[in-house]
Amino acid sequence: MKSNKIPEATVMRMSIYSRFLFQLMERQVQTVSSNEIGKGVGVSSAQVRKDLAYFGEFGTRGVGYRVKDLYGHIMNILGLGRSWNVVIIGAGKLGAALSLYKGFIDRGFKICAILDNNKELIGNRLLNIEVESIDTLNEKVSTQKISIGIITVPAVEAQNVTNALVESGVKAILNFSPTILRVPNNVILRNVDLSVHLEVLSFNLTYNSK
Amino acid sequence: MKSNKIPEATVMRMSIYSRFLFQLMERQVQTVSSNEIGKGVGVSSAQVRKDLAYFGEFGTRGVGYRVKDLYGHIMNILGLGRSWNVVIIGAGKLGAALSLYKGFIDRGFKICAILDNNKELIGNRLLNIEVESIDTLNEKVSTQKISIGIITVPAVEAQNVTNALVESGVKAILNFSPTILRVPNNVILRNVDLSVHLEVLSFNLTYNSK
Repeated sequence: MKSNKIPEATVMRMSIYSRFLFQLMERQVQTVSSNEIGKGVGVSSAQVRKDLAYFGEFGTRGVGYRVKDLYGHIMNILGLGRSWNVVIIGAGKLGAALSLYKGFIDRGFKICAILDNNKELIGNRLLNIEVESIDTLNEKVSTQKISIGIITVPAVEAQNVTNALVESGVKAILNFSPTILRVPNNVILRNVDLSVHLEVLSFNLTYNSK
Repeated sequence: MKSNKIPEATVMRMSIYSRFLFQLMERQVQTVSSNEIGKGVGVSSAQVRKDLAYFGEFGTRGVGYRVKDLYGHIMNILGLGRSWNVVIIGAGKLGAALSLYKGFIDRGFKICAILDNNKELIGNRLLNIEVESIDTLNEKVSTQKISIGIITVPAVEAQNVTNALVESGVKAILNFSPTILRVPNNVILRNVDLSVHLEVLSFNLTYNSK
């Protein structure tokens, strides 16, 4: 199955469903309906069924889904049945914040290295990781089996860093730098724009006041 | 019109469409079809038309959309025809990174204050803002007409900070703290989980290799 047939919004909702199912597991809930999942995360039950249908048949009519099984299926679908090693390039404030972000390790993403070209930042310790020179990138990626790179460098440096990541063998890149990057077809690139979240708020503030 | 009828995914796509239209404007493009918008942002043309249809009739059959007009409409829909004043609570690494995040001001979100209860952080300067005591929250919100609060404090402090924000009169909260928060019905709460972005990558890495 090729993922390019599956809408990204579906993948993001699968991630949200898995968090809801995890909460149910913590409360010892055994089964759940698409209706309950929908209510729990704020989408329609039809949307829940449609999203899950991309990946197979998981529920039983009249019974619903077994919480633990569905959680396991979704985690496998998301590629979270294993851990992923990650390198962060850019040890400024955002890179440092991300390296300490607890949500990553909770979901199996392990920050193995934080690299920078700024001598003032190299040697800084962030929890149990020391900022090292970007010159060590190839060695880090191969010895630590790193498959994902996170870019938090200034926009003007982002394409050079991207090229270095591609050359090092990283297969997926999460870009926080506000610029458009080019990658070869065999590398997955995802851009994060944090202002989208504020725009959902400004939308709601505007429409709720009408 | 009440926003609770409009899917959040639609709102997020509207935000993405506006960025694509802005790029077209920079290239002096006058008109665009739903097909071109869809290709530009990676969704179907039917999805583009369906999203826009929530808000009215914008295009002309056979001609498409006037880029500048559609951009203006979408910015107004998103509540971005004006600027929004924002307070960040939590001047740690993530709060500091967000206060310097260029994407916010580019879309009209102005960070007016960064507050913390940690005496070691109070007095720090981040660009042109000085970290101040959280005791000044009410005064900041009223004198600076702040309507949005961003929470970047540790999970254990997040509910107290939320209560303080609500009491100060803030109407919308963006929460980066990994915990479930309670707000009254008249306050909009949005939780950001940065690991969702990494999960879209792990999903693609897993499925593309199958």
